[in-house]
Amino acid sequence: MSAPVRKYITYNDVHKMCQASAPQILEDFQPNLLIAIGGGGYVPARILRSFLKKTGSPNIPIQAIGLSLYETLETAPGSPEEVPGTKVTRTQWLDFTSLSNTNLLGKNILIVDEVDDTRTTLQYAVQELVKDVMEQAVKAGKPELAKETKFGIFVLHNKDKQKNGVLPEEMFTEKRYIAAETIGDEWCCYPWEAIDIDEHDRLAAEARAAAKQ
Amino acid sequence: MSAPVRKYITYNDVHKMCQASAPQILEDFQPNLLIAIGGGGYVPARILRSFLKKTGSPNIPIQAIGLSLYETLETAPGSPEEVPGTKVTRTQWLDFTSLSNTNLLGKNILIVDEVDDTRTTLQYAVQELVKDVMEQAVKAGKPELAKETKFGIFVLHNKDKQKNGVLPEEMFTEKRYIAAETIGDEWCCYPWEAIDIDEHDRLAAEARAAAKQ
Repeated sequence: MSAPVRKYITYNDVHKMCQASAPQILEDFQPNLLIAIGGGGYVPARILRSFLKKTGSPNIPIQAIGLSLYETLETAPGSPEEVPGTKVTRTQWLDFTSLSNTNLLGKNILIVDEVDDTRTTLQYAVQELVKDVMEQAVKAGKPELAKETKFGIFVLHNKDKQKNGVLPEEMFTEKRYIAAETIGDEWCCYPWEAIDIDEHDRLAAEARAAAKQ
Repeated sequence: MSAPVRKYITYNDVHKMCQASAPQILEDFQPNLLIAIGGGGYVPARILRSFLKKTGSPNIPIQAIGLSLYETLETAPGSPEEVPGTKVTRTQWLDFTSLSNTNLLGKNILIVDEVDDTRTTLQYAVQELVKDVMEQAVKAGKPELAKETKFGIFVLHNKDKQKNGVLPEEMFTEKRYIAAETIGDEWCCYPWEAIDIDEHDRLAAEARAAAKQ
């Protein structure tokens, strides 16, 4: 197996990807709550909010959640094969005590992350949030409201590869899944992880120039 | 009154400010939890985490909180003067149900925001977090642990101006207040708010060139 291609993404790339996706998000989904999956979703969520703001309207609120994905290699009983296991750990969840914007019922909620790789984290986020919605609807004595709550996803990059996680089919048919860019199984180097940002930008520019040739 | 000077800050400026401040933060404070004040603290907190990570150690966890500052002009009774009032609203607070890293006791907790303007938001964050610590210490039956929890602050810009909010004095004497840059009462234009990021960068470069002359 050869090493995956490294894809260098600059901050301005991220900024422009959010900008380019915003009109489609507003047209197809009209979110009224953003949920940023930390740490990768923090930067795109904050940028996206600027481009989703309509003149004269308040900002769309952002709630942050923290999810960590641990990929463990487990051996299936009686099998010599190593089966990739996955475990998502919550480091932060929605705060339901603070404000009315954590009332999820009837909202269009856009989950924001930087990359859809194996889809495991996104599946976890959606299924847990759907559970929260059901719980809120039952508590409110209005179970029918659960159906009126819609989830969407925005990622900077979707990797076109075998996914371990599954998302509800209607998310795709109803255009509630939006990736600014679909790429191969490349190694995404996001700028907030760069130790030398000038060198990072140079490598990004070099790759861009090479792609043009 | 003339319009305040606009200060254009690029993403790479933000990145390098976090990078430049990280050694001092590690030396003077050694945080083991970051609390990002959303939305402005999201980007610096995520970048800072990259530079605070020590080889072989796990990432420092980030918890996000959301605070909105509403400045209202209230008329003091019997006075013709308008008194600037301030009200901070929580849009998200720590999630104490998720994980051990919301156990604040005995930790060094670095609160991250983009700017210290009137200091109102930062005062609110610190005083409310101190309350949470006291509560956790009493619950744990170890009130003495409250004293061992230290708060620090990191901002990109501190505006050298009259502050409405007050922070504990020892935060300054113990070097737990770190501003990457101290500026006058300028209008900070952060890149994540830029509608045209190329023009934003051009204005930043222009100001830099003018400052050199």
